[in-house]
Amino acid sequence: MKAVLLAAGLSTRIRSLTGGRPKGLLKICNRELVYRTVEFLRRRGINEFIVVVNPSTKDAYERFFSNLRVNYTIVVNEFPEKGNGYSLLKAKNFVKGRFVLFMSDHLYEEEFIEKALKGFGIVIDKSGEFIDKEEATKVKIDKEKVVDIGKDLKDYDGYDTGFFVLDEEIFKIAQKLYEEKESFSLSEVVKRAKLPVWEVSGLFWMDIDTPEDFERAKKLLIKLSIKKGEDGIVAQKLNRKVSTFLSDLLSEYLTPNQVTFLSFLIGVLSALVAIVSLPLGGVFYQFSSMIDGMDGELARCGLRTTKLGGYIDSVLDRFVDSLFLLAVAVHVEPSLVSSLLVGSAIFGSTMVSYTTEKYKVSFLSSPFEDIPGLKNFPGKRDERIFLIFLLSLTNSAFLVIMFSALLSNLKVLYNVYLIVKKHN
Amino acid sequence: MKAVLLAAGLSTRIRSLTGGRPKGLLKICNRELVYRTVEFLRRRGINEFIVVVNPSTKDAYERFFSNLRVNYTIVVNEFPEKGNGYSLLKAKNFVKGRFVLFMSDHLYEEEFIEKALKGFGIVIDKSGEFIDKEEATKVKIDKEKVVDIGKDLKDYDGYDTGFFVLDEEIFKIAQKLYEEKESFSLSEVVKRAKLPVWEVSGLFWMDIDTPEDFERAKKLLIKLSIKKGEDGIVAQKLNRKVSTFLSDLLSEYLTPNQVTFLSFLIGVLSALVAIVSLPLGGVFYQFSSMIDGMDGELARCGLRTTKLGGYIDSVLDRFVDSLFLLAVAVHVEPSLVSSLLVGSAIFGSTMVSYTTEKYKVSFLSSPFEDIPGLKNFPGKRDERIFLIFLLSLTNSAFLVIMFSALLSNLKVLYNVYLIVKKHN
Repeated sequence: MKAVLLAAGLSTRIRSLTGGRPKGLLKICNRELVYRTVEFLRRRGINEFIVVVNPSTKDAYERFFSNLRVNYTIVVNEFPEKGNGYSLLKAKNFVKGRFVLFMSDHLYEEEFIEKALKGFGIVIDKSGEFIDKEEATKVKIDKEKVVDIGKDLKDYDGYDTGFFVLDEEIFKIAQKLYEEKESFSLSEVVKRAKLPVWEVSGLFWMDIDTPEDFERAKKLLIKLSIKKGEDGIVAQKLNRKVSTFLSDLLSEYLTPNQVTFLSFLIGVLSALVAIVSLPLGGVFYQFSSMIDGMDGELARCGLRTTKLGGYIDSVLDRFVDSLFLLAVAVHVEPSLVSSLLVGSAIFGSTMVSYTTEKYKVSFLSSPFEDIPGLKNFPGKRDERIFLIFLLSLTNSAFLVIMFSALLSNLKVLYNVYLIVKKHN
Repeated sequence: MKAVLLAAGLSTRIRSLTGGRPKGLLKICNRELVYRTVEFLRRRGINEFIVVVNPSTKDAYERFFSNLRVNYTIVVNEFPEKGNGYSLLKAKNFVKGRFVLFMSDHLYEEEFIEKALKGFGIVIDKSGEFIDKEEATKVKIDKEKVVDIGKDLKDYDGYDTGFFVLDEEIFKIAQKLYEEKESFSLSEVVKRAKLPVWEVSGLFWMDIDTPEDFERAKKLLIKLSIKKGEDGIVAQKLNRKVSTFLSDLLSEYLTPNQVTFLSFLIGVLSALVAIVSLPLGGVFYQFSSMIDGMDGELARCGLRTTKLGGYIDSVLDRFVDSLFLLAVAVHVEPSLVSSLLVGSAIFGSTMVSYTTEKYKVSFLSSPFEDIPGLKNFPGKRDERIFLIFLLSLTNSAFLVIMFSALLSNLKVLYNVYLIVKKHN
């Protein structure tokens, strides 16, 4: 199946942001808007793209597509003012049978594309959860077909998501409208064709018309990039607020790997600082924990996740945690008890992660999905670090070590207990 | 597809071991010989067994099969002295189309069964690697069909493995032989049928005729149950010799889980002993390492592996290692350096395993297969424990802690280095 991308619009309302460059090539998390949909389609075997551009955007799209691992044909619409219905018509000679139609200025999450491809016709969303409903194109349905479509419908059943699975029939309708009118929109084609409706509701999608839309999309994409299920309570309530704020701020300047390395350095720095001043070290340590999620957010948001990235991130976290505990140990009066506590704290700190990672190896599934009760007992990394940060403010190294050892080892025993209970 | 099991033999040569009970129900690693093949066939979708027994073995097989999750029909051959060709004929009315034929006194590794099922005819092995070649039934082939078969062939191409994929045609041949002779063997049927030959060479299979065969089979099955690829050099050269010896000795008395628990207890005990006497604790620790492989051997040998078993085994190993290091720490003069060394030793000891387990999670493959170089640097558990054992003989706790910290952390860095190099 081929896909037709309409990218010939004049994007007048977002000119302040684009400065005349194509809207679809604006970047969020260092990825062009269009890249996302193209990539999601490519992952599902769609490898041939017909890109309808206007004369002023032609070169930019040509450059963009030449860097992708897909086949593409650039089709120039010399008269973009004739409307996006006319742009569709320009693709007529390049597709046969079924094809996908999508817009350069619409964003979708991957699951949306997956579900959309299973249907035929216009994909509509009944929830409109993420969009500006006022500005959205509404669709009125009767017998599972479009009977009316437009921004100003009072009575409607869902929103036009800008994503379609069509066949050649659509060009006949477009051709008729072309013969009747100077300029015509895709909506007019859809209405005249009485397109079947395919519902994909509640998943993220947006169209970007204004600079405000763009900012909102960026924030939402970063929020959606939070890895669900493995965050402790401190990460959920505090750390993620800081990390998503910083991800939003810095997404164009730093790669995920750079952030991993930076966050490791700040962790090591926090240990060094803790040698001089425990409270200040604790503050740094908590800060490193707050930015610990950024690399994953930027990687997922920018479709740049790698296996090695995830691996290194985890291993470095173990190093930072142990280094910090060793730094705290510097302040403890040497004694047998303190040696044993330092050893136990480091053991527990590493083993909390070991007990869940090894679970994934042994049972080939997520412990947090299999055993929701695992979350009921605190002691995940974000929670341990927050406790250490608070205790370090008392400037009592012994307290920090003792509570770390206690909390993490209890967490380890609790994890193992629940896992044995579940699988025995 | 159904399977026919010939279990009507009189097993005279192994009477000293069976005391008249059926040979196929002798146990290795607490599993009946027949169980293994039945289970391997069941895993590949063969769920219906025709079991040809003699009057004296009927009840035992009836009991055995009633405890399995398969369908079965017991067929009594009242005249076992008429030969196993006649036993085959007794199955005639119970199978249609293709079926598997196997013997109650033959053992196979799982991969053998997998490959054997892909062919048709008599399965032969050209290597005879594991068998008593003198006693084996030889096969002479011409144009991929059997032209001669027998124990005393001088000129032959392979060995009869006792495993067949056949169809109803075979019963016509057996019927003819039945009409010609008082008693006839399966080999005579095979020869008369000019069966096609299907080769599966080099994998473990054996037939059990004598008590010596049985002992050898037991040893071989335990050896084949060693998990390849994750053993360090000390495990390969020393520990496995002890563990397989003990597995052989104790396989009927202990379940894998009991051994896991016992080995954990001995590990904990070694730490307690080390508090009193470091050298003696080291000896115990090395002993616990030598029996650490037994649970896995017994589990695999007895087809009793469980995900939880593997999980708990790994987690308990981490506990034992850290407890032992804490016990050693008791002997070290308290100082900042010793605190840091104890912490580092425990970190390294846990992280060696973490770096490879997390690898499996991130890359969904085995680090030892992906990166053979991982083995070039010592520091796996068996190697660390052996070093600790040797150093503990010097009675210098400081030396033990220092070298443990050094070796394990170098190993961690080496692992991470090779993994980054491989995937970057």
